[in-house]
Amino acid sequence: MIQKPPASVGQRLDEVDTPALVLDLDAFERNLAALQRSAGGRVRVRAHAKTHKCPEIARRQIAFGAIGVCCQKVSEAEAMVEGGIQDVLVSNEIVGAQKIARLAALAERARIGVCVDNAENLKDLRDSKAKLDVYIELEVGMRRCGVPPGEAVVALAREVSGNLRFAGLQAYHGRAQHVRSLAERKAAIERAASAVRETKELLKRNAIDCPIVTGAGSGTYMFEVESGAWDEIQPGSYVFMDADYARNEWAAPLPRFEHALFVLSTVMSRPAAGVAIVDAGLKASSVDSGMPSVWQRPGLAYTRTSDEHGCIEGAPPPALGEKILLVPGHCDPTVNLYDWYVCVRNGKVEALWPITARGAVY
Amino acid sequence: MIQKPPASVGQRLDEVDTPALVLDLDAFERNLAALQRSAGGRVRVRAHAKTHKCPEIARRQIAFGAIGVCCQKVSEAEAMVEGGIQDVLVSNEIVGAQKIARLAALAERARIGVCVDNAENLKDLRDSKAKLDVYIELEVGMRRCGVPPGEAVVALAREVSGNLRFAGLQAYHGRAQHVRSLAERKAAIERAASAVRETKELLKRNAIDCPIVTGAGSGTYMFEVESGAWDEIQPGSYVFMDADYARNEWAAPLPRFEHALFVLSTVMSRPAAGVAIVDAGLKASSVDSGMPSVWQRPGLAYTRTSDEHGCIEGAPPPALGEKILLVPGHCDPTVNLYDWYVCVRNGKVEALWPITARGAVY
Repeated sequence: MIQKPPASVGQRLDEVDTPALVLDLDAFERNLAALQRSAGGRVRVRAHAKTHKCPEIARRQIAFGAIGVCCQKVSEAEAMVEGGIQDVLVSNEIVGAQKIARLAALAERARIGVCVDNAENLKDLRDSKAKLDVYIELEVGMRRCGVPPGEAVVALAREVSGNLRFAGLQAYHGRAQHVRSLAERKAAIERAASAVRETKELLKRNAIDCPIVTGAGSGTYMFEVESGAWDEIQPGSYVFMDADYARNEWAAPLPRFEHALFVLSTVMSRPAAGVAIVDAGLKASSVDSGMPSVWQRPGLAYTRTSDEHGCIEGAPPPALGEKILLVPGHCDPTVNLYDWYVCVRNGKVEALWPITARGAVY
Repeated sequence: MIQKPPASVGQRLDEVDTPALVLDLDAFERNLAALQRSAGGRVRVRAHAKTHKCPEIARRQIAFGAIGVCCQKVSEAEAMVEGGIQDVLVSNEIVGAQKIARLAALAERARIGVCVDNAENLKDLRDSKAKLDVYIELEVGMRRCGVPPGEAVVALAREVSGNLRFAGLQAYHGRAQHVRSLAERKAAIERAASAVRETKELLKRNAIDCPIVTGAGSGTYMFEVESGAWDEIQPGSYVFMDADYARNEWAAPLPRFEHALFVLSTVMSRPAAGVAIVDAGLKASSVDSGMPSVWQRPGLAYTRTSDEHGCIEGAPPPALGEKILLVPGHCDPTVNLYDWYVCVRNGKVEALWPITARGAVY
């Protein structure tokens, strides 16, 4: 069920079988550096591993200054700890006896944090005797999980006891990340910052220490940093960038990250003038946030998809058998389709990194 | 990189960890029987394995009368041959030296067919010395790969020589499958049938024998059967059905297939009245053809998704920790997210089938 790598070390990029998930190592490393240059020293960086699902990448994020990673699933956290990562926050609610038992087992092997938004769930975590850092998830505009600012946060924080440690607040405004206008993204984070400050003050009035406020994604994190309300940021997509993020307006204080992740495809049919069909469809590049874009071929556009095919239109049309790099519409679910990163530098395959948390859905 | 199964044999469904891909064996077997009852004896059934990616399922399709399977990728065909399937048509163009070499190796182990729509590609296949059944793909409304009806088909068929055998025509109208109105689906297949008949007559006038016309999907196959123009059908989704197919109008001559494939999810947050967040987002149920539907909870709807979360709204709201079955919007890319089918009968896990062609994208 593991697919063989579509490449071997030392091959030229044009020798790689397709579709393949290609990581441009130079661009990737520049992205790691750019993130740290912009935010490092001002807040802790806890990189989001849901994007890459790969301990090899997590280790490099830590080498560039991250204090650890976050994950969305217990199984992702298991893959990270298995891969040697010692500090993992599951930035999500973990509900159900089986999952809590797995989380407790993991907390024997590494420092593990988890989010809560419900007293019943918090009781189950407490009863598990697991040694966990607990973050209360604050609803700051995401409209998903989380407790709204107010007394409910205090009530929940008071219930964090036993082997559990109240580590602070999870405050992530995911909806703000893809708002195109920089000014609107900034305004959304300012509203979230007010909710965070109000909650911190409320906790303080109740003599509850709130060590860390964590949150923020690649599209806004400098606004969280500049607000002063967050202690830790959780960017994920910055390592790769994708076509959807590229549609955002980018300017200071956010650095301009580079596309480092690609799907290499092959033209498998030339059915008509100006039309080329490539072998990468929606099982090769997730289309939940739009079609992939065509890399460095300005006259061409990827116009429609089906399960195993993509349609590229424009001029000059690529030849049958030609290999085309695509920038995925959305990096996270695209990575989740592959077993291997084909890591390329100067047009040559330098390494193959296994995506060990691929499919780590539970 | 293979995830552990989320269940063990003998467990009750409500003990299965989530998200899990659940196959209702009774419904699945009734779907196998319904397909064969409607079409069997009138045409050959070559079930499409791109839907399920699982030799266990392919073997059952063959036990119910299918002559073999089709696949879209060489790597899928490899997984099927590895799983003991001896007759595989790659219903797609295979371009590039590496892929053709793998196809040739596979043809040493099983009966392998492949589609062509291009003379240059056909030459590469011929030069490989592989013993392959070659089908010319006819464009019948799919607007993807394929040769339009006419002299180009004859010219291509004349080039099928050496170890290659001209096996006939691939004529699949994928766009017709999801047209909601039964009458419009029928009309689309009648137009495709005209293109097939015209091409068969042209081949006959040129003294070229056309042994098999193959094609058709779950949404239309009885129209292909009744037209008399096809010898073989390629339905895939009928084994599972999905929420998108369920939106089609279903009536005779097509049987009403049952939902047999589900994503089991858990309510992980109850952030507001009438809102429940489940742990199955777009990495657990592909949303390219719409949101999943909620199974047998008529007051509830899955209204929005993010990578790892789904929002369920309505009444009566499910409780925290409650398990909810979802019907995937699109079965094929959803299956491609999982390593295991959790096969359930009478509420108990009967088997765990590995999805060996999961991620078989190249």
